[in-house]
Amino acid sequence: MKYIEPLARLIASLTKLPSVGQKTAARYAYSILNSDKADTDELIEAIREVKEKVHFCSVCGNYTENEICDICATRKSSVICVVQEPKDILALEKVKDAEVLYHVLGGVISPLDHVGPNDLRIKELLARLNGIDEVILATNPDVEGEATAMYISRLIKPMGIKVTRIARGLPEGSVIEFADESTLSRALLSRTEL
Amino acid sequence: MKYIEPLARLIASLTKLPSVGQKTAARYAYSILNSDKADTDELIEAIREVKEKVHFCSVCGNYTENEICDICATRKSSVICVVQEPKDILALEKVKDAEVLYHVLGGVISPLDHVGPNDLRIKELLARLNGIDEVILATNPDVEGEATAMYISRLIKPMGIKVTRIARGLPEGSVIEFADESTLSRALLSRTEL
Repeated sequence: MKYIEPLARLIASLTKLPSVGQKTAARYAYSILNSDKADTDELIEAIREVKEKVHFCSVCGNYTENEICDICATRKSSVICVVQEPKDILALEKVKDAEVLYHVLGGVISPLDHVGPNDLRIKELLARLNGIDEVILATNPDVEGEATAMYISRLIKPMGIKVTRIARGLPEGSVIEFADESTLSRALLSRTEL
Repeated sequence: MKYIEPLARLIASLTKLPSVGQKTAARYAYSILNSDKADTDELIEAIREVKEKVHFCSVCGNYTENEICDICATRKSSVICVVQEPKDILALEKVKDAEVLYHVLGGVISPLDHVGPNDLRIKELLARLNGIDEVILATNPDVEGEATAMYISRLIKPMGIKVTRIARGLPEGSVIEFADESTLSRALLSRTEL
């Protein structure tokens, strides 16, 4: 396909979005080309604003427009929930009764990707532990998330603070028949008495 | 999900792209938020350029940066291929030996969408027929495309110009077992002698 210059450039730019290939990018480009000028101006302005106005909360590392995010500014709690990315906070906030503070690591320890403990916001976490009763480690239940949780746990436990890990097991509404082996094994291991 | 203002606005803007819902838009927004400033500037610039520089060829209605598109400016042919949209030209140009001129209708006759013959570039087509030997009608093989082809054919045929319609039948590499009834019926009807 030979697109004219400006279209080709927009398509190339759009393929940088996650899992957008040539064909999807071309669909988007045509849609932008055919949309109202007002819509396009809005899109451009929204992209610019997100890059200009959104930065990290200086306390917890969440996305915010201000110096400190809304949760850090308004919530009182002695529990800090440690997550990998700001978007994890949005997911956890859907749980209504989770009135906790958060701390974003900005990733997980992953030697293959050259990410070590010093690349994460662990020092900042340790500096926040004054007056904290419990640290919930809510990194993803995969190898890197597990290793990162273990690493942080070993740093914090000696300080006499309760350290917990989110439970792993069968997800609600799932079917045992199709559960993978390691999830099943974990669900048996962590069985609770009724 | 409660996103902060700028993110929410970008997500809303991105959902206007074809078949992009909330979740995909959020993925794109996060990707834009985390991408290099250079990439984002490039994207903004590409969107702006496409809207500013791309317009319709004054002869055929194809997309172009100039007054007249490359095909109209350089190609000599006495055959005009009539298509619905500029992107159809790109598809047809993949056929190497199609050295024809094009004419973009800008849609098809569709009473349900309040599109009548006067909303299409049919007048412009009639004005181009001087010195043309054949008009190939390459609108889509659906109800509207068919009706539009019939309508145009009835206008042009009396002028003594050959009017043809792209062939319909089984697509290459398809399986008769799974072909739909109307395609099969058309393939039987338009059978050719060997």
